[in-house]
Amino acid sequence: MGPGPCNPYPEVIEAMGRPLLGHLDPEFIALLDETNERLRTVFRTTNPLTFPVSGTGSAGMEAAFVNVVRPGDAVVVGVNGVFGERMCDVAQRCGADVVRVEAEWGRALDPQALIDAHPSPAVIAVVHAETSTGVRNDVACLHTGHEDALVLVDCVTSLGGIPVEIDGWQVDLAYSGTQKCLGVPPGLAPLTVSERARGRIVERPSSWYLDLNMIARYVGGDGARAYHHTAPISAIYGLHAGLGALLDEGLEESWARHRSCGEALQAGLEDLGLTLFAQEGHRLPELTSVWVPTERLRDGMDEAAARRALLERYGIEVGGGLGAYAGRVWRIGCMGHTARPRNVMLLLAALEELLEV
Amino acid sequence: MGPGPCNPYPEVIEAMGRPLLGHLDPEFIALLDETNERLRTVFRTTNPLTFPVSGTGSAGMEAAFVNVVRPGDAVVVGVNGVFGERMCDVAQRCGADVVRVEAEWGRALDPQALIDAHPSPAVIAVVHAETSTGVRNDVACLHTGHEDALVLVDCVTSLGGIPVEIDGWQVDLAYSGTQKCLGVPPGLAPLTVSERARGRIVERPSSWYLDLNMIARYVGGDGARAYHHTAPISAIYGLHAGLGALLDEGLEESWARHRSCGEALQAGLEDLGLTLFAQEGHRLPELTSVWVPTERLRDGMDEAAARRALLERYGIEVGGGLGAYAGRVWRIGCMGHTARPRNVMLLLAALEELLEV
Repeated sequence: MGPGPCNPYPEVIEAMGRPLLGHLDPEFIALLDETNERLRTVFRTTNPLTFPVSGTGSAGMEAAFVNVVRPGDAVVVGVNGVFGERMCDVAQRCGADVVRVEAEWGRALDPQALIDAHPSPAVIAVVHAETSTGVRNDVACLHTGHEDALVLVDCVTSLGGIPVEIDGWQVDLAYSGTQKCLGVPPGLAPLTVSERARGRIVERPSSWYLDLNMIARYVGGDGARAYHHTAPISAIYGLHAGLGALLDEGLEESWARHRSCGEALQAGLEDLGLTLFAQEGHRLPELTSVWVPTERLRDGMDEAAARRALLERYGIEVGGGLGAYAGRVWRIGCMGHTARPRNVMLLLAALEELLEV
Repeated sequence: MGPGPCNPYPEVIEAMGRPLLGHLDPEFIALLDETNERLRTVFRTTNPLTFPVSGTGSAGMEAAFVNVVRPGDAVVVGVNGVFGERMCDVAQRCGADVVRVEAEWGRALDPQALIDAHPSPAVIAVVHAETSTGVRNDVACLHTGHEDALVLVDCVTSLGGIPVEIDGWQVDLAYSGTQKCLGVPPGLAPLTVSERARGRIVERPSSWYLDLNMIARYVGGDGARAYHHTAPISAIYGLHAGLGALLDEGLEESWARHRSCGEALQAGLEDLGLTLFAQEGHRLPELTSVWVPTERLRDGMDEAAARRALLERYGIEVGGGLGAYAGRVWRIGCMGHTARPRNVMLLLAALEELLEV
């Protein structure tokens, strides 16, 4: 129950152990195509260029930026946590003129402030679900601000857990991670790129490994299968199976399960007298942040000792706070196969045992 | 029996299915440390900065270049196949002044030509085992040429299969892939960086994802474990187990097994009347290239049909040629768990069935 990785679906573990196929084997290519089609369903998009980047979520972030940002481009970035900060760093390395729009950690960004931040941005970039704080930022209306701006959204902790509507929200570039609400081990970064954004891809990005011009010739559905790099076969088996489990359940049913688990957890924490960290109305169900009840921990435990006790006594991982909130906030994940009422109940019962009455 | 991925060791498959741990879980950190120690043994190095990059072999290549190459640096690259070409592309994207030293595909590079190519190169980069041609390039003496040059070696297809001596050959940066002679599915790129090269790391590489300054704070053995990106947990379980299998067998015993399988395969192909492609004395045992016996294929099959027959009738994948050798050369892998005499025998018997007598 940390901020990711979650527990993977059992189908995923089974799939990852299947015999290896080569990355150009027709059976593997068919499985990759089907994986990409499942990703389109989950992203709610028809974007042809939709596939898993061969790296973790941060590789997805880098792929999104390096392929469309040119030196000197104005890139507006919303910053209300670690991953917004990371976007600034990545964009600056592309030579962008980064325009930061900040909100206090724990509070949501103001979409209008993002739209108003620059008269003609090349890119407006926002983290949909800030894993560092448990806050959901609104991204649905960002496309309304500037006709020529690309909207770039980090869906690492949102995809599969809360509504994501790539086409409905006219998002141009979005990436995710496998180890959050998709219920798959970490290692891949699902990415989707609109046709509009494809038209803006730079000729030779600074990264060879993440160069979408070349990768599209391997993953693209146009018949051509030019080798770029060896696809991580077993990880793609796992993603394929995880998306299968998710779609067998139903995407909206998965959102509902994440929501009900998150609501139960957040209500239970408040019942224990704890104070939630994230702004009401913008709380993620899949990632709950809560102030550490330092004064009430039994036997003078500090927060790290309390997390260790949860891990050692109950087998539950809970994440610590980041940045200025290290030691002051816990981050509790309820994602993928971990988002089950029994896990919520066990954690609440375990926490109760760690607190003075 | 393609040019990779190989079949993984059974221990690897078992390990990849183990329950997920968080990337900051003490048990996982201990396993990562042990993985890195095993990598040092296999690379024959004491380099503290030795770890698996969270991407495939090409991500290892990119990590090696982007962290030490500055715009305008002279970078000498040996080119006698696809992966030498790829190095040029990657180095150019770092702004390097690339000095190409070529050899015909199928022939080995002349180490002295690499040393003589530039009076003061920042980096001399060579592919140890060219997967596109089956040629071994000599890299042992490259360090003798220039006191200030960093020696950068691609060990993707050599590590675990033929002798690699990072410290003995004074190699500064080397990377590999997991899916070749290490017997693990693709997805990670073992990387080792000498202390000398660490002293030359650029302050802010173009890649955030591959920035060794930051990654070292997570993987480094100095106690600090700063989160950078979520490690691909299951893949690292697999690598840990694969290195365990390799070291249980013995590194030199693994080299001997690859050698004997490769020799048996190459002798068997010649006995069938086929002609080997790579230069004698520089043939890789783990990757055999052979001219397609087009005239002798039964029933007027072309080479693609013959490979399809191998796959469909016998379950054997064999790789096609790349570049100018597409359709003219086959590439046969004998790597990791695939490097077994029974596989060599089966392939030779199957090939015999496809040939006119």
